[in-house]
Amino acid sequence: MNAPLRWLHHAVAAPSAALREQARAHQAQLTKPAGALGLLEDLVIELAAMQHCLRPTLERVQISIFAADHGVAAENVSAFPQAVTAQMVDNFARGGAAISVLATELDAHFEVIDLGTMLPSAPHARVRRERIAAGTANFAQDAAMSAAQLASALGSGHAAVQRARAQQAQLFIGGEMGIANTTSASALACLLLDAEPQALVGRGTGLDDAGLAHKISVIGHALDRHRPHCGTPLEALARVGGFEIAALCGAYIAAAQAGLPVLVDGFICSAAALAACRLQPGVRDWLLFSHCGAEAGHARLLEALRARGLLDLQLRLGEGSGAALALPLLRLACRLHANMASFAQAGVSGRD
Amino acid sequence: MNAPLRWLHHAVAAPSAALREQARAHQAQLTKPAGALGLLEDLVIELAAMQHCLRPTLERVQISIFAADHGVAAENVSAFPQAVTAQMVDNFARGGAAISVLATELDAHFEVIDLGTMLPSAPHARVRRERIAAGTANFAQDAAMSAAQLASALGSGHAAVQRARAQQAQLFIGGEMGIANTTSASALACLLLDAEPQALVGRGTGLDDAGLAHKISVIGHALDRHRPHCGTPLEALARVGGFEIAALCGAYIAAAQAGLPVLVDGFICSAAALAACRLQPGVRDWLLFSHCGAEAGHARLLEALRARGLLDLQLRLGEGSGAALALPLLRLACRLHANMASFAQAGVSGRD
Repeated sequence: MNAPLRWLHHAVAAPSAALREQARAHQAQLTKPAGALGLLEDLVIELAAMQHCLRPTLERVQISIFAADHGVAAENVSAFPQAVTAQMVDNFARGGAAISVLATELDAHFEVIDLGTMLPSAPHARVRRERIAAGTANFAQDAAMSAAQLASALGSGHAAVQRARAQQAQLFIGGEMGIANTTSASALACLLLDAEPQALVGRGTGLDDAGLAHKISVIGHALDRHRPHCGTPLEALARVGGFEIAALCGAYIAAAQAGLPVLVDGFICSAAALAACRLQPGVRDWLLFSHCGAEAGHARLLEALRARGLLDLQLRLGEGSGAALALPLLRLACRLHANMASFAQAGVSGRD
Repeated sequence: MNAPLRWLHHAVAAPSAALREQARAHQAQLTKPAGALGLLEDLVIELAAMQHCLRPTLERVQISIFAADHGVAAENVSAFPQAVTAQMVDNFARGGAAISVLATELDAHFEVIDLGTMLPSAPHARVRRERIAAGTANFAQDAAMSAAQLASALGSGHAAVQRARAQQAQLFIGGEMGIANTTSASALACLLLDAEPQALVGRGTGLDDAGLAHKISVIGHALDRHRPHCGTPLEALARVGGFEIAALCGAYIAAAQAGLPVLVDGFICSAAALAACRLQPGVRDWLLFSHCGAEAGHARLLEALRARGLLDLQLRLGEGSGAALALPLLRLACRLHANMASFAQAGVSGRD
C-alpha cells in the first residue's frame, strides 16, 4: 500500500460495551413496556456505546455533500444531462436543494465538496473546491480513476471528518451528487457482492424500461472488462467508482477511526459503506442506516451490511436527504432516553 | 339515532381537488427527479388539499390523550396491573411519559382527558376530568358501556377537536392509555372486519404465549356473545369498545367535519379510525397514518383503511407516540415543498 493510503489501516476501536449495557439497563427502567419503542431503543443504546455516554445527544451534526461527475454518463445511463451535477452544486450552496432545506431545518453544519464536476461550479463560501479532475474516466472503456486520484478522493473524505471533529460534531452524514453515479455504485456493488447487474441495477433518477435495460447492459460489459483486476475493494473503487463514492468510503473509515457515529444515506452511500467495511470490518460498528430506498440494489446492500434502514418511504434522491429526514427520529430517541421518567420516579407499577 | 349523537352525521366535506392539483404541479417543478421524495410528496400534496393551501404548514399541533380503564382487565388479559392507567395519567401530566417528552420536543399543545380510570388520577392542570365511569364494564360478561356512556365518550372526542380549532391547530393527534385496551380494540376490529381473533389479536404490552392464547380465548367467547347485537359500528363500540376508543372515533369524525387533518397513531387508534370511517366514509380523506406497529392486527386494519403508515419501527407503545415520532417527517415534507427551488429558479436542467 502506498503512503497516501496508509491511514486507511489505522485502528478502529469498538464502541463501549460497558456503556451499551448501562444504556440498556437505563432503557429498561423507563415508563413503557420493555421494547415498546422498537428500533429506536436499539438505536439509542448503540449511540450510547459510540458516544461513551449514558445519555447520547445529536445536537451537532455535520452534513458533507461530495459532488463529482462520471465519465460513464457518456453512455446515456442517466435521465438527466451531465450539466446537472455542477448546477446542483450551485443549488446546494444557494439553499434551493432538498438537502439545503433539510440542513437549515435541522440546524446542521452543511458543506459541499466539489471533487470534480465536468462544468465548473460557481464559487461560493459553502463549496470547497477539492477538484481531482473534471469527472472520472468512462469506466465502460477504462478504469474510472488512477491510484493517485483514488487516494485524493479517499483523502477528501478523511479531511471532511477532521473538519467534523473540529466542529465537535456528534454525528456525520455524507451525501453525494453526480449524474450517472447510480451506475457507478451499482457496478461497485456488483463487484463487492459478486452479483450480476440484473439483481442490483435500478432506475436511478428515473429511467424507463429501455433505459434500464441499456444501463444493465453497459454495466455488464464493463464488469466483464474490470472483474479480473478487482481483487480488492480499492481496485474496485478505482475501476468503477466515482470521486464522491471514494470520498464517502474514506469518510466512513475516518469517522470510525475517530469514534464518530455515521448516519448512512441511500443506495450510493451504502455501496461506499460496504467498500469501507470490506477494507476495515470494524467500521460497521460506527454506521447507522437511515432508510431503504427505492433503488433496486439498496435492500441487497443493506442485507450484506446486516443493516436495516429506519425509514422506508420510497426515497431515491440521494444528497444525504434520507439521512437528514431520519435525523429527527434519532434525536427524539435520544430525548426519550434522556428525559423519560423511570417506573420508580413516576410511581408507576411494573408488570404483574 | 338519539339527539346527543346527531352531530355524528353532520356533513364531511372533501379536501380541495383544486389545491391538490396545484400542489402536485408545484412539486413537479422542484429541483429533484419526479417522485424522488417518495411518500413524502403524496403526503404534502394531501395536506395542501386538506389545508386549502399551496404550501401547508404544521407548526400548531394538538395532541389529546384519552385515558380510561377497561372492565375486561379483570380477565387477566394484560401484562400490567390496572392501576397503571391512572398512574400513567399522572406521568403524562408531570412530563415523564414518552408522549410527554415528545410533545415538549415537538412544541405541541398537549392535554390529557381522564374519561374514567379505575383509581382516581391526581388533579393537574394538564388533565381534563371528563369521567364517565370508573372504567367500562367487563365485556366478557356484559356490554362495555351504555348508549348514554357511548354518547358521552364520543362527545369528549368532539370537544377535544373544538379545543384544537380554538387553538388554530393545523393537525390533530389523538392518543390513548388504558390497561387492556388492545383487548378492546382487537374485539372491535374483529367485529368491524368480520374476522376471527386469531388473525388480529397480539401481545399488547408484552404477553407471553400462554397469555396471548388466553387473550384470544377471552375475546373469542365475548364475540360469540356480542356479535348478534353488533350490526352497526356504534353497537360494536358500545359492546366491546372503551371510553378512550369511542372518544378517538368521535374526535376523528369531528376533525373531518371541521376540515382538520388527523395523524392517526397505532393499533388502537386505527381501530377507532376504522369505526369512524364506517360511520362516515368521508372521514378517511382527513386521516394520515403515522406507522405500522408491532401489534398483530395493525397491518390488517391499515389494509382495510387503504392506508400505509409512514414508519415501521416495531413500535407498540400507544399514547400517540408513533404519531408524534412521525410528525417531524410531515413537517420536513412541508418545508421541502415550500422552500425548495424550482428548476427554473435554480437554473438546473430538466430531464434529457
